[in-house]
Amino acid sequence: MIRRGVQAIARLGHHGALPGASCVLPRLDLASAFASSTDNLISRFCLQKTDLKDYALPNASWCPDMLSLYQEFLEKTKSGGWIKLPSFKSNRDHIQGLKLPSGLAVTSDKSDWRIFTRCIPAEGQGYEYVIFFHPSEKKSVCLFQPGPYLEGPPGFAHGGSLAAIMDETFSKTAYLAGEGLFTLSLSIKFKNLIPLGSLAVLNVEVEKIEDQKLYMSCVTQSRDQQIVYAKSSGVFLQLQLEEESLQ
Amino acid sequence: MIRRGVQAIARLGHHGALPGASCVLPRLDLASAFASSTDNLISRFCLQKTDLKDYALPNASWCPDMLSLYQEFLEKTKSGGWIKLPSFKSNRDHIQGLKLPSGLAVTSDKSDWRIFTRCIPAEGQGYEYVIFFHPSEKKSVCLFQPGPYLEGPPGFAHGGSLAAIMDETFSKTAYLAGEGLFTLSLSIKFKNLIPLGSLAVLNVEVEKIEDQKLYMSCVTQSRDQQIVYAKSSGVFLQLQLEEESLQ
Repeated sequence: MIRRGVQAIARLGHHGALPGASCVLPRLDLASAFASSTDNLISRFCLQKTDLKDYALPNASWCPDMLSLYQEFLEKTKSGGWIKLPSFKSNRDHIQGLKLPSGLAVTSDKSDWRIFTRCIPAEGQGYEYVIFFHPSEKKSVCLFQPGPYLEGPPGFAHGGSLAAIMDETFSKTAYLAGEGLFTLSLSIKFKNLIPLGSLAVLNVEVEKIEDQKLYMSCVTQSRDQQIVYAKSSGVFLQLQLEEESLQ
Repeated sequence: MIRRGVQAIARLGHHGALPGASCVLPRLDLASAFASSTDNLISRFCLQKTDLKDYALPNASWCPDMLSLYQEFLEKTKSGGWIKLPSFKSNRDHIQGLKLPSGLAVTSDKSDWRIFTRCIPAEGQGYEYVIFFHPSEKKSVCLFQPGPYLEGPPGFAHGGSLAAIMDETFSKTAYLAGEGLFTLSLSIKFKNLIPLGSLAVLNVEVEKIEDQKLYMSCVTQSRDQQIVYAKSSGVFLQLQLEEESLQ
């Protein structure tokens, strides 16, 4: 029962064109599903003892705006409302604590995997970002500074690089706020270009959780909120984790 | 008159939250706008004499499916219908032949810029892709093979990496089919996960060009069309190029 949704996803490929992923996924037994608390999810996600490098820490490439807003949110973590999420090189590292359903596990390959948004290791050249999460309000803030390897129009971030950090911030928020694991849809309206090397702030909120789906919104803007870079929405599918990972 | 749209975009940032980029852009003089032919756009884009490296060429990392479909489309270029687009490290290289409006030009910085979808230089680790364009039918096909640095769920491409290559394929198609330069919106429905190292085929079509906007659609699927990975739509804004670049 627990793995039905995942098996359905694994099968989708063999059925040709689909009317929509949301239509073909069988209902989980909602009475027993999604029982793990946000606290448990967070404690598994934010490993306390680890020698993994956390990429969501300040470095010399951070612009003053990014650094000072980071410090501001770090202060807010001390009063308990906000949590700074660690960011390892690969989702497989996070998954030490949040085992994915076995239908999707890949363990035999020896590749050097990286989560897409940490694909460029050189400081300041690619993605610089840190996500703060507010469990009780089910919202997140991502501080994002695109480097010169994320270029689209000369001097500005590629629209796709913003789409990807939106998807990533949605994804981590969906998981921690309600075991949302897979993006079903993503819709973006672009308003202004983000200059490379500057700070963009993503404000993500969970609008509702209904019918195994999390509905989320994001406004991306300058720190002073005077420039809106983009507005977006995303829908994520809840999937039951394996029982052994819930213990 | 020619640069109005660009100046409007440059100004947007000073006006705070916007009702929608499409609403605040003043109309261009459509009688004189968008006069450059597709042939001219293509000849400027596909530089014949260049020592720039074209990243859209086969390498040892390409899977057999990608290689054979590439050869198939290369054959189709000989009969005149399809064109293989070159892909340089930066849009600034393409822009040697397709000068952007001066309001957006950035020339003083000494950074090593890369277009986002060529941000990982190691063969096979990041983005492998090649775009073929069909001028008379205003459509494109992008062969896309995500490497291990584009990971989201273990073993599969990050949703954001697919969003970015969609935006990039839309973008190049919009430019060549009708001087579409900026993404106004992007909307994606994800159906199945793309295994890392495998081929996904993006089929992009221009649905209509209306009111300074190009409306485009994309279906991403396996080569045999048995697995639909995602369906998406995008709207791009037409912007008049500087006159000197039209000569």
